[in-house]
Parts: sequence; C-alpha cells; structure tokens
Amino acid sequence: MTYELVASSAGDAERLARDLTIEQTVEIPEGCYSRAIEESVVSRVEQLSPQGENLWQLTASVAPEIVGGQLGQLLNVLFGNVSLFKGVRLTAVDWPDEILVDLPGPAFGIPGLRKLCQVPHRPLLCTAVKPVGKTVAELAADCRDFALGGADLIKDDHSLADQTTAPFAERVARCQEAVDEANIRTGGNTLYLPNLPGDPARLVERLAWLRQLGCAGVMVSPLLFGFEATCHLARSRDLVILGHPTFSGAFFDADHGIARAVLFGQIYRLIGCDGVIYVNVGGRFGWTLEQCQSVNTALRAPLGGARPAFPIPAGGVQVDDVERHLERYGADTMILIGGSLYQQGDLEAATAALRESLAVAVG
Amino acid sequence: MTYELVASSAGDAERLARDLTIEQTVEIPEGCYSRAIEESVVSRVEQLSPQGENLWQLTASVAPEIVGGQLGQLLNVLFGNVSLFKGVRLTAVDWPDEILVDLPGPAFGIPGLRKLCQVPHRPLLCTAVKPVGKTVAELAADCRDFALGGADLIKDDHSLADQTTAPFAERVARCQEAVDEANIRTGGNTLYLPNLPGDPARLVERLAWLRQLGCAGVMVSPLLFGFEATCHLARSRDLVILGHPTFSGAFFDADHGIARAVLFGQIYRLIGCDGVIYVNVGGRFGWTLEQCQSVNTALRAPLGGARPAFPIPAGGVQVDDVERHLERYGADTMILIGGSLYQQGDLEAATAALRESLAVAVG
Repeated sequence: MTYELVASSAGDAERLARDLTIEQTVEIPEGCYSRAIEESVVSRVEQLSPQGENLWQLTASVAPEIVGGQLGQLLNVLFGNVSLFKGVRLTAVDWPDEILVDLPGPAFGIPGLRKLCQVPHRPLLCTAVKPVGKTVAELAADCRDFALGGADLIKDDHSLADQTTAPFAERVARCQEAVDEANIRTGGNTLYLPNLPGDPARLVERLAWLRQLGCAGVMVSPLLFGFEATCHLARSRDLVILGHPTFSGAFFDADHGIARAVLFGQIYRLIGCDGVIYVNVGGRFGWTLEQCQSVNTALRAPLGGARPAFPIPAGGVQVDDVERHLERYGADTMILIGGSLYQQGDLEAATAALRESLAVAVG
Repeated sequence: MTYELVASSAGDAERLARDLTIEQTVEIPEGCYSRAIEESVVSRVEQLSPQGENLWQLTASVAPEIVGGQLGQLLNVLFGNVSLFKGVRLTAVDWPDEILVDLPGPAFGIPGLRKLCQVPHRPLLCTAVKPVGKTVAELAADCRDFALGGADLIKDDHSLADQTTAPFAERVARCQEAVDEANIRTGGNTLYLPNLPGDPARLVERLAWLRQLGCAGVMVSPLLFGFEATCHLARSRDLVILGHPTFSGAFFDADHGIARAVLFGQIYRLIGCDGVIYVNVGGRFGWTLEQCQSVNTALRAPLGGARPAFPIPAGGVQVDDVERHLERYGADTMILIGGSLYQQGDLEAATAALRESLAVAVG
C-alpha cells in the first residue's frame, strides 16, 4: 500500500513512516514485542521517497495473515488508527490475492448489469426518485414516468428510509409495481432499486420483502449501512448493489484521507457494489475531471477476479452536459440524473429525450 | 444543529447555508418540489453569523419526521452528502426528544460500569492486551497478569480479530478463563472485553459464544462495525460496549468534518457506547487538552435520558502522566493504558502500581 505523508524533513518522514507501520499493526512501542513479531507482523517500509515540497511517498507492505480474512481488520490496517495521524493519505493499494479471495466483489458488475438491463453497448441511464416528503403515490407516479421514458434503472433518493410520509414496505411495493406496469406497456426492462436502510433488526424482513416483490437490487450507503454489512449482502449474489457516497466527504482532503480511486474504485467495488455513485465534475461538489476519471479507471481495471463495476457520476449532472461527460467517460458509464429531469416537469418526456441522446452519445 | 462554514463573503456563506439545507433534505433544485415540502421538509436556516475571518456559524433546524427513526438517515441529515461540500464542520447538535427516543444510549454507562466493577468513586483502569501475532496462550497470560495486578477492565487490541495466530473463539475463551481464575485468586472483579469483529455472517454465533463464556461486554469500532450494528447490539442491554475510534481521523479537520464532542461525545454515546476511547493529549496523535475535555464534557452531560458514558483517553498514555491527566479529567474517567505497562516488563506489578496510584489520584 502507498501513502502520501506530509513531513517537513527526511527525518520527520522516516519517523512518521515507522510510526505508521507500527500503528497499523502491533500498535505498541518498539521493544515490547518479540523479534518474530517484528518480522512477521509489523508492516515493512519498502520505499520512502520525496514527492514534492514537504511531501513524501511511502510504500509499505504487510503480511496478509495480519488481516486474517476480516474486512474490518483490513480497513484497520489501511486507514484505522493511522487516520488519526495528521498528513497521511492512502493513495494506492496493491491487493494481494490472499486478501482479494475473501472479498465478494460485484455479483453482476458491468456485464451482469448490461444483461439485466438488456443494454449491450451504450451508457446506462439511472434516475433518482425524490424527494423525501412526497407520498407513496407521488413517488410511484414518478417511478412510472421514469420507466415509461425508458430509464434503465430508477433508484430511491438515499434519504428515503421509512418515514411516515412514505413507509418503506408500502413505498417499495408501489414503486416496484409502477415500474412493472410501465415495463409491460413499453416492453422495456427498467429496474427499480430501493434505498435499503441499515437497521439490522429489520434487515432480514426487508430483504425478504424486496425479493418477494421482485426488486432487482438495492442502493446502500456503505459508510452508514456498514462495510461488513454491504459485503455480507453482496455474498447473496442475487441483488444488484449500488453504493452511495454519503458520509464519505471527510476522506477526501488534499493531504489526508483515502484517494477516491481507492475508496470508491476499489473498496466499494471489492465489498460488492455493482455500480458506485460519486459526485461528478461540474456538479454541486467541486470534484475535478481527473478525480472523476481516477474512479472510472479503477472501477473498470482488472482487480483479481472482481468484475468491473459501473462508475455512476451524479450530483447535479445536467441533461445538456450528458453527451460531453460521456464522450470523456466512455460507454461503460451509468449516468445518474435526478434534479435535471425534475426541472423539466414532464418526467416521461425528459427521460425519453435523454435516453435517446444516450443511444448516440458513445459508440 | 450548528455548522461552521468556510466562505469568503456573506453572500457565499448564505449560498452555502441554503445549499446545505437543501442537500441534507430534499437534495433537488429549488422549484422541483411543492411549497408544502419546502415548509415541512427542507431544513431551515435559523441563524447565520460571522464567526471569524472567512468563517460563519450556521444554525439550522429540521423536522424530526425527516429522520423517521432511522439512524442512517439521521447521519445523512447531519453530515451525509453535506460531507461532500468543502469547508463544512458540524459543531453541535441540539437533539430533539423525538430523535433521542429512538436511540438506545448506554445500557450501563458510568453508574452501571462502576457497579459491575465494584468501584464506586475512583477512576477506572482499563488495559489493552496486544499485539496481533501473539499466540492464544501468550494473550491469555497477559490477561491473567493484568487481572492479578488489579485492572478494572481488560480489552483486546482492536486489531485482534480472527487471525490464525489467535483464532477468535479459542482466544476469547482462554482470555476470559484467565481473567476468571485471577478474579478467584484476588477476590477482584476484572472484566474482559474482547474486540468484536463485524462480519454479520458470524455475529450471532460469536455473541452467543461470548455470552456463554460470561464476557461482560465487547469493544467495537463503530465506523467499521457499523453505527446501526452498534445500536442494534446496544439494544440487547446485557453487554458493556466500549467504542473504538479507528477510521475516525478523517472527520477531525480544522475546517471540515464533525466536532469530536459531537462524534465521540454524543453519537458514540447515543448509539450505545458505555465508554468511548479517544486519543489523549500528549500521546501519539496530537489532540489538544481542550479537544479532549470537549469529549469528556459531552460524554457526561445530560442528554435526554441517556446515561453518561466513560471518557477513555488512550493512545500513548504514560503511566507517569496518569495522575496529572486524572487531576484535570476528574474521577469519572477510565484511563486506558497498554504500551506503557508492557514497557515495564512485569505486567502484574506495573498494573498493581498504577491501580494503587489511581486510588489516590482523584477524590
């Protein structure tokens, strides 16, 4: 694994590198453990080189046995207590097979989702049904219109949970029903993916309900739903999982945190997300094109046996800009648009027009 | 709830405040929702005032119904998509009763833990058994020595999961047994709290095992174990829960993230932690005394019906500094020491000496 370290001298960088290797493994002062543990447990500084002013690049390695097949412990090693140091940024991970084999990866990924949606080549179109506060009937009507317009996927807004305005069980049933009816009328194949709240006391019951309704999958927010819970869900292999970025923003400081390509492009994918929603350049959140492309590239790159996952740029994407985005991102992209369709008023017409433009956007 | 916003003019601050209230609720452009939703769903800017150079304080309020009793959605509102804005820091939450009633809070808290440990007044002493790489026999021997020395609690290092060097079931059984035997010899009352990995597939089985062994509780890392899973565990009301801060460091940027008093002092407590481990001033992580005291104060302050929880300063606390820390922090503190005891070689003697000093440290 590779980190960027902020340090004002080579000596400080060396100290921080050594502290980091101890903190991510034995977490105890030198001298308090045996030579055998020093050699087999403490992660090793492989390389430490200057990277810019007050910036250093550390490559360290750790024995996969330290992780012991536990996702939580993997995250402890990568950015656990180490997150509490200042000026430490995890920029890359060279995943050993022993770690990869314990992670489910996407059950569908790009090829599986293309098959489910019956869209072999073009970019996929995902819409978002919102906002919280609408009634079940209103949300279901929006779903119907998106499906009639030819959306490939419709996902709940991540704030739709189990509010009294639209309780989970009723909302999901009516939305799925609306999409089913639209599919019959159009001969289309729109998938509806409800937002799955994380409460473990209701999870089994809710999943049974979703499966009974024929939902193709769910959206989860891994940082809130739980990394381990996402992983566990992905192991069932029968539900599409879209990963939402809520609560992740603290990890993306310029000199502290986890690189977007690692968190969204690798970790979200390895825990089982078939598509990963992130915030697009030019939207509401100020990411750069380069940052977006780093996620796109990572999600599609070979990574052990893990299927590639769809990058899902979102967060204020405007209909008028979709073609330009897709030219840069390529066909293996799922574009997520909510607000810009709602702004046009007629959801069905707006969705149909956008779907039309996608068909010609790339390849 | 109160945020600090970084903005270079009053106009920018107003725009950011308005964007924030939309993002944490409807997450859709203005004009795309009804007046009823504007009034009942979008959070309201109550106050926006200059706080310093380029710094503004925003107080916003939201209807509790938007949260709908869902912890994940509560975190969405507080710092979900909002985390993806730059220069936004959640500094305080004024918790409405409707929200508090849905959160378990500590099952034991300070009074319950004092009763379990039979320590009515003085600070509690917690030690940490480590590191990963030791065998079960070595870890159990350390537990025995800590217990013979009179530790009130012994917790696993958070990196101990289910590694082959010390598999979970065997390790926990031998460590609990060692502590039980020591308690019989000393007439003492040391509690052993294993680190609980988060894998949902094994959780039920592991919890049954812990209960069968008579473990008094567990340590969990809420950011990895899951906020919702921690909450769910706390609802069983029969296990002490210590919360570990791993993976949290990204939230503590000076101008972005969540105030320590909110994340550790309120959220960790409300989801059910009886004690909250944080990194002490003067240790390995550079927190200030004021930051530590903000957590201490929040954990002990009235908060709906939630029991107060123990602050647990840790992370490089030296035996020689314990009295000084406790004079500042007060008796309702649990001091967590690992490395500094291991450095002395004789764990039993080192623990006994420290325990002795605690008895006189405060009141």
